[in-house]
Amino acid sequence: MNRQIVLVSRPTAIPAQEHFELRMGPEPSLPDDGVIAETVALSVDPAMRGWVSAEANYLQAVELGAVMRSLGVGRVLQSAVPDWKEGDLFYGWTGWQDRAGISGGSILWRVDEALAPPQAWLSVLGLNGLTAAKGFTAHAKAQPGEAMLVTTAAGGVGSIVGQLAKRAGMRTVGLTSANKCDLARNRYGYDVALDYRSEDLGKAIDSACPDGIDVFWDNVGGDISDLIFQRLAIGARVIQCGTASIPTWRPWPKGPRRERDMLVKRLTWTGFLAFDGDAKADEAALSILRHLVAAGKLKHDEQCVDGLERAPEALAALFLGQNSGRIWVRP
Amino acid sequence: MNRQIVLVSRPTAIPAQEHFELRMGPEPSLPDDGVIAETVALSVDPAMRGWVSAEANYLQAVELGAVMRSLGVGRVLQSAVPDWKEGDLFYGWTGWQDRAGISGGSILWRVDEALAPPQAWLSVLGLNGLTAAKGFTAHAKAQPGEAMLVTTAAGGVGSIVGQLAKRAGMRTVGLTSANKCDLARNRYGYDVALDYRSEDLGKAIDSACPDGIDVFWDNVGGDISDLIFQRLAIGARVIQCGTASIPTWRPWPKGPRRERDMLVKRLTWTGFLAFDGDAKADEAALSILRHLVAAGKLKHDEQCVDGLERAPEALAALFLGQNSGRIWVRP
Repeated sequence: MNRQIVLVSRPTAIPAQEHFELRMGPEPSLPDDGVIAETVALSVDPAMRGWVSAEANYLQAVELGAVMRSLGVGRVLQSAVPDWKEGDLFYGWTGWQDRAGISGGSILWRVDEALAPPQAWLSVLGLNGLTAAKGFTAHAKAQPGEAMLVTTAAGGVGSIVGQLAKRAGMRTVGLTSANKCDLARNRYGYDVALDYRSEDLGKAIDSACPDGIDVFWDNVGGDISDLIFQRLAIGARVIQCGTASIPTWRPWPKGPRRERDMLVKRLTWTGFLAFDGDAKADEAALSILRHLVAAGKLKHDEQCVDGLERAPEALAALFLGQNSGRIWVRP
Repeated sequence: MNRQIVLVSRPTAIPAQEHFELRMGPEPSLPDDGVIAETVALSVDPAMRGWVSAEANYLQAVELGAVMRSLGVGRVLQSAVPDWKEGDLFYGWTGWQDRAGISGGSILWRVDEALAPPQAWLSVLGLNGLTAAKGFTAHAKAQPGEAMLVTTAAGGVGSIVGQLAKRAGMRTVGLTSANKCDLARNRYGYDVALDYRSEDLGKAIDSACPDGIDVFWDNVGGDISDLIFQRLAIGARVIQCGTASIPTWRPWPKGPRRERDMLVKRLTWTGFLAFDGDAKADEAALSILRHLVAAGKLKHDEQCVDGLERAPEALAALFLGQNSGRIWVRP
């Protein structure tokens, strides 16, 4: 029995249980250039909203009736290639299923359980960590003493980028929901954590950043980002890593024009996806993360949901922001 | 008699004759660290609209009753410093007047009449050229075969940046007014020149750039830039060099949100002012320009307006786009 979660309809807004079904699928066959693996930890990502929508995105949409696309940690059962042996663990595109046939090109990197358990390789040592480390290294141009503001500061990427900025000597300000402000401050080391729904958010940011914001790591866009743009310092860097606050782009939403901000403040605004770039930059970023995790210098949290059948429910919960720590599914 | 043009009121939109007066001013006194100079060529710049407005800008507003701020070429009459001798020519902040006392810090660089006449030092060898060369070098990341689109393509900056892009092996598309399309193509070497007011502008751009636009050098902002953003290629660079199409920022105008474009297309958008940066970058950019001008490989056009008293009229004409070539005033 190879249990699989397949996509059966496209959500117009947030994906939920009803858009998926549990099916008994065929046993995978071994690709010439890959492995058969059993999944030991499966990822649940905000980006999945994009993958299941009909709208064009940076990845092809998941087809109706297909196994839900997902990253995961797999253990090799059978291998057709010399690089991988039975029992090896890897991080790659497994999909939400018990077992998968995976070609070499869909394997991202090796998982070392001695360094951290499989679920950590879905978060701090996976794409979240890579996104934070690559984006911060390439685009923040961090200077000690400068102020960095992060939205969804307690999230999978935000919690890591805040710690990297702090280590680079920056003053860090995190925006998150009220119930996560303590977490952001006490565990992820933000100098200031603010409830993004608070009425006086503008004033609170002004107090936290009296000289303006030098780096704005934005995971949300929308109204909140408008508030931040007004408070950017001359020469500030904006890193667009997500647009979580904007539920739909049909019709395309309007906002304050940015041309004058860009020019008068000499801003640099960069859109960024962890998928991009070369293997060298990836390896450099991952090496930093491995080193910090090994030394116990990077806090990360994962929250387990037990049972493959609960993956859709875990995805829906993600958008309610009730999780604390990166959600993962133990199939 | 030291004739001076002074600002007497602030325009709400475009500056005109009525906002200025011609006055007989005092003879300048010699600064300890500078020179007294007679002006031989005075600049008329789009940026002047910002300098005379009450709104905060990147430079302090010109005070009411003060001599209008302007760049110009001056000839030294008397010097208090060893670097400058009687008869030397320089490019610097002279103001709209016959003679000026100028401290060393307000002199930008030396003018060499053997290389090009004074008015060329207000355009291709002045801030226009510096803006084009510095911005292009630092931010375009030009690759041969890529497409670059420039707004106000026949203007002081656009005409130069188009030629630099062409020399770098790019395919260049210029947007300008209908009466300047021939000029943009035949003299400034644009592969394609398009009337920015044409009804089918979007389609025309699609034909000119079937693979999208890789570099967007924007001097205008607004609706036209919205049209271009839709046509940017993955990884495109946007250089914001002006916002000429937007008459006022009170109330702040709205436009399509950019967050999704930034992220999905992995754009880099940079605001840029020639004033910024270090002397080394300036010297590198100017050296390129001097070399190309000396070799006759950079087309530039200047249009003379005779008489200091006509400077305000020349400024107003600038915003009607009726000039061909960079306007300058011979006092």
